[in-house]
Amino acid sequence: MIGLGRMGEGMVRRLLQAGHECVVFDLNRDKVDELTGAGAVGTNSLEDFVSRLAPPRPVWLMIPVAFVDEMIGKVVPLLEPGDVIIDGGNTHYHDDIRRAKELGPRGLHYVDVGVSGGVWGLERGYCQMIGGEAGVVGRLGPVFEALAPPVETAERTPGRDQVDGSTAEHGYLHCGPTGAGHFVKMVHNGIEYGIMAAYAEGLNILRHADVGSRQHEKDAETTPLRDPELYQYNFNLSEVTEVWRRGSVIGSWLLDLTAKALLKDHDLDAFSGRVSDSGEGRWTIQAAIDEAVPAHVLTTALYQRFASRGESTYADKVTSAMRKEFGGHVEKHSAGI
Amino acid sequence: MIGLGRMGEGMVRRLLQAGHECVVFDLNRDKVDELTGAGAVGTNSLEDFVSRLAPPRPVWLMIPVAFVDEMIGKVVPLLEPGDVIIDGGNTHYHDDIRRAKELGPRGLHYVDVGVSGGVWGLERGYCQMIGGEAGVVGRLGPVFEALAPPVETAERTPGRDQVDGSTAEHGYLHCGPTGAGHFVKMVHNGIEYGIMAAYAEGLNILRHADVGSRQHEKDAETTPLRDPELYQYNFNLSEVTEVWRRGSVIGSWLLDLTAKALLKDHDLDAFSGRVSDSGEGRWTIQAAIDEAVPAHVLTTALYQRFASRGESTYADKVTSAMRKEFGGHVEKHSAGI
Amino acid sequence: MIGLGRMGEGMVRRLLQAGHECVVFDLNRDKVDELTGAGAVGTNSLEDFVSRLAPPRPVWLMIPVAFVDEMIGKVVPLLEPGDVIIDGGNTHYHDDIRRAKELGPRGLHYVDVGVSGGVWGLERGYCQMIGGEAGVVGRLGPVFEALAPPVETAERTPGRDQVDGSTAEHGYLHCGPTGAGHFVKMVHNGIEYGIMAAYAEGLNILRHADVGSRQHEKDAETTPLRDPELYQYNFNLSEVTEVWRRGSVIGSWLLDLTAKALLKDHDLDAFSGRVSDSGEGRWTIQAAIDEAVPAHVLTTALYQRFASRGESTYADKVTSAMRKEFGGHVEKHSAGI
Amino acid sequence: MIGLGRMGEGMVRRLLQAGHECVVFDLNRDKVDELTGAGAVGTNSLEDFVSRLAPPRPVWLMIPVAFVDEMIGKVVPLLEPGDVIIDGGNTHYHDDIRRAKELGPRGLHYVDVGVSGGVWGLERGYCQMIGGEAGVVGRLGPVFEALAPPVETAERTPGRDQVDGSTAEHGYLHCGPTGAGHFVKMVHNGIEYGIMAAYAEGLNILRHADVGSRQHEKDAETTPLRDPELYQYNFNLSEVTEVWRRGSVIGSWLLDLTAKALLKDHDLDAFSGRVSDSGEGRWTIQAAIDEAVPAHVLTTALYQRFASRGESTYADKVTSAMRKEFGGHVEKHSAGI
Repeated sequence: MIGLGRMGEGMVRRLLQAGHECVVFDLNRDKVDELTGAGAVGTNSLEDFVSRLAPPRPVWLMIPVAFVDEMIGKVVPLLEPGDVIIDGGNTHYHDDIRRAKELGPRGLHYVDVGVSGGVWGLERGYCQMIGGEAGVVGRLGPVFEALAPPVETAERTPGRDQVDGSTAEHGYLHCGPTGAGHFVKMVHNGIEYGIMAAYAEGLNILRHADVGSRQHEKDAETTPLRDPELYQYNFNLSEVTEVWRRGSVIGSWLLDLTAKALLKDHDLDAFSGRVSDSGEGRWTIQAAIDEAVPAHVLTTALYQRFASRGESTYADKVTSAMRKEFGGHVEKHSAGI
Repeated sequence: MIGLGRMGEGMVRRLLQAGHECVVFDLNRDKVDELTGAGAVGTNSLEDFVSRLAPPRPVWLMIPVAFVDEMIGKVVPLLEPGDVIIDGGNTHYHDDIRRAKELGPRGLHYVDVGVSGGVWGLERGYCQMIGGEAGVVGRLGPVFEALAPPVETAERTPGRDQVDGSTAEHGYLHCGPTGAGHFVKMVHNGIEYGIMAAYAEGLNILRHADVGSRQHEKDAETTPLRDPELYQYNFNLSEVTEVWRRGSVIGSWLLDLTAKALLKDHDLDAFSGRVSDSGEGRWTIQAAIDEAVPAHVLTTALYQRFASRGESTYADKVTSAMRKEFGGHVEKHSAGI
Repeated sequence: MIGLGRMGEGMVRRLLQAGHECVVFDLNRDKVDELTGAGAVGTNSLEDFVSRLAPPRPVWLMIPVAFVDEMIGKVVPLLEPGDVIIDGGNTHYHDDIRRAKELGPRGLHYVDVGVSGGVWGLERGYCQMIGGEAGVVGRLGPVFEALAPPVETAERTPGRDQVDGSTAEHGYLHCGPTGAGHFVKMVHNGIEYGIMAAYAEGLNILRHADVGSRQHEKDAETTPLRDPELYQYNFNLSEVTEVWRRGSVIGSWLLDLTAKALLKDHDLDAFSGRVSDSGEGRWTIQAAIDEAVPAHVLTTALYQRFASRGESTYADKVTSAMRKEFGGHVEKHSAGI
Repeated sequence: MIGLGRMGEGMVRRLLQAGHECVVFDLNRDKVDELTGAGAVGTNSLEDFVSRLAPPRPVWLMIPVAFVDEMIGKVVPLLEPGDVIIDGGNTHYHDDIRRAKELGPRGLHYVDVGVSGGVWGLERGYCQMIGGEAGVVGRLGPVFEALAPPVETAERTPGRDQVDGSTAEHGYLHCGPTGAGHFVKMVHNGIEYGIMAAYAEGLNILRHADVGSRQHEKDAETTPLRDPELYQYNFNLSEVTEVWRRGSVIGSWLLDLTAKALLKDHDLDAFSGRVSDSGEGRWTIQAAIDEAVPAHVLTTALYQRFASRGESTYADKVTSAMRKEFGGHVEKHSAGI
């Protein structure tokens, strides 16, 4: 395992708990020492790292996407035909396809693994979506299984007893040829963005359900609320999200986490609302467009993140400028909520 | 309980199982007989129904929204001050507020209950979001609790042990004054639309990931796919949804159901794709607009349902007509997928 | 004419230029005096105003929507059967229908006029969309025609010579019964929002086409730009909008105004980007939803305005809170552009 | 000029009218003969074509994007250093950048021109957005000017008299280095999609304003219209679009064309509503995403086109399948409108 950040460290610990031997490397020596203390074989150079693995070596990379190609460039000269590079990061599947083509002539295999589970993976297990050659992926089965959540995590889907030989119930899946793992993970994250935005928007609507009890100005620039008496509710959102956790149609793990966050801090004052995006949401939309398939929800969820970072300000200024030109409208300075 | 349809019947059965006495009425005599066989007190007229209940009577309506006002008109003359009308249907909260105002002077109470759980409620329990006077709602606690899912259904949210007197963990919640129950249920369903659309769009993108392997025409009316080799995947969506059920960030009850549906019928040939909407999604958007709060995802999910029923066809024709006028573009007859 | 604001004043001046006699009233005495100087009959009370008009009196209201009902309440007792109240403001057509019902028994007529043209109407003429009884609307024809732009403003639509008796080419149209004028104006404004947003978004994309030349951080919270060399353009947007004004498919009056605004101030530093909405955009969406018709573009344009005023902040905070819970992601503080 | 399709033919004719000499080539001999008859120099092979041009040769390609690279491959061996290849098609600007890099070492120049104007360009002139080396673009000025609309086409933007040396008023603009022309044209088309969708949606809402007068079923699968009396309008859309052409804020050339199309065929029965997209709309969104800039309107307009071709059907089936699973909802077969 190369890369002992948030995800990498958790994965190593989970593998160790399952009795696997793990050779680890990271530029951060403290992390290496920490995991050595937990039973891993720590190394302090790539040469050292490679030499501690027996061929055919499975070299699992768990590092930020921006550094993966550089790392592959460094580690490849140290490897032998038959070795396998596994990229478990949030890689664009285009890069998987390119890399597999580059590594093939050297006799090296490339496996792409989309890993979901976040900081909870150590405890809950990591859901793994895998792409690459079937034989190579098959040999790594025990590793994937150790990382994955146990089958009991979820109730059996009716009809599953008729399905032979699938690992899907065991929390990992060989999705197809090179890139298939990251493609499925990419869309997984696209869906994640959409679901998160659905909850966020709904809670925002509940939060503003008291709008009728607040004062509004009467002028040509402000739309009057027609029936203020219909918007007099002060909802307790930590209670609302809690009640939804049992028996409702919208129960989910993300809801569990939302209920937890709101219980800690109903107003979410610890957050400013600038939401990052890590790439998969964008690539999902690019795939949708290449496929000529509509993806209204996933796209608008992504754009909401862009907008949360101020990226629509110039567009808003253009709109204000037009309004001034045709109607003499001067911008109001409202307070926001 | 008046109304023994899909939801009403399940609720009566669940109450009976918990040892509650239930007086039932429905225009459909067979349903009444069936539930009488299961232990309920069947009645064959509203007069009969009311007379079998001891005051203060809780009269729970579980009928299509379009018939609720008519039913209230019929039952009100039979009731006495102190009696309670409970509307558990998918009512617009505006109607709750109006009705509570109308019933108040007669000494009748009105409680609105948003019920989630669908056909699974009998087995899983019903999540209930409740609006009305605190005292009246409080007296009905045992009924709500019997209908609700048990607290063990979900793991405890960290910090919940510090919260006193909340029923949220027990699957029901007094959300606020009249209309609050249906308001929260309304937004709940709005969120539900968004989440469903997120999965649907994502699966559609996965489904079309083989677009590069299909033949495309080269002409001025068709956009060529720039890199067909990037879209050569044939994903097994029942396997993909299954693997996401364990350890992934997007695990949810709706995903469980999706995995089940796809396992039965990967191509979903049993469905044409005409999606109904039952009102709450629309009202959620209307609330968002009244509150001047953006709801991109929830709205677009609703519109997708409208579009699935052919309601955007005229708009599409207008677009085609414009294209013909400015560019001489003639419509292509493509096959769809 | 009651109400001499931005629109009302311009309309009176245009009527005076066409040789019409105008009796005017406004709470702002200076405005009344100003227009008296321009040839109008100024009045200093509603009684005075009504007494100067010969029956059947056309009483045209041009005041903020929030004050219309109050004004009607004051003026109605002064009127006689056969008089006509004309509401030329941005009224919700629901109110038109209600008012016409209220006024009918008193023998008063009600005409709703949606007026487009903004501060340019005095010079260009006002486009008028009219609802009400055909006979009453017909008698007001000369007034509407004087306010409207001349027929030569636009080239004749091919085939129009075959159409008899239509006033559409003359810039005003009896669209249908009560409310029809404001309904058409409402949708007109909904479309306006969509078109404005289309330009605004496109210009924002052009504005950010230099993103590849700016520095980006490499970390797990920032998506790296895959090909920075593809985004090295510094477009001059006042030149770009100018070139689009001649011969392009997207030429329009709004584009003319945009080119003008950008020539004055390329960076639009005079604007902060808080965009108001005056109601019609919201009502358009509510109509779309009542009709079960998708309106993706018009809705998202409206939401963009809500968001420009900070109304999605709580939703963004919810998203940030979820990301922290499942992935340990801490918000970045980016600078925006 | 290579390529005498819809656009190419019109451009040659416009150049001939302006007194320019044009050498033309097309695989379709009839087209070549037709234009030879109109004064062009017809050629029947690429060799012939090149030999008729004096160096430095301007070779303008006006062919479908899918064939451009192939054509460049054929013509390049016939050219000499200093010659210029001009691509006036709907090319992705990524390809411009690549080609300029490939042609540079051979001493060939590459100029990209985004051309708007459609079938009307011959009559109205072509709006041209140009990318490439300033010197090369400058030398082609007379050609661009002949193709462009005359400056009188639009009223002068206030302040333009202060601007020196800009060609923007003359209908063509050197937007920046290689690719800049097609980048601006790409966004231009993205905006075009948005504007078209805005009109289309608005007209669709007007079209359905009679929904209250149509019969609706009362059942749990159909949302009842709360106030049918509010939706009793039968709008004449050819009249409505005509009245908007004069004095309204939404006047535009696209509106002119819409009014024309609706006058010919109010119900647009000649169209089925399958809307093609020619690429620029997609690329605009991809640019927005690369730039991390929200583009809600432009994207949803594009998706509407995808959906018009049936590409969301599988997503809709997934939604139906979920509804069946959780609520026992069976699809309704509605008639659409």
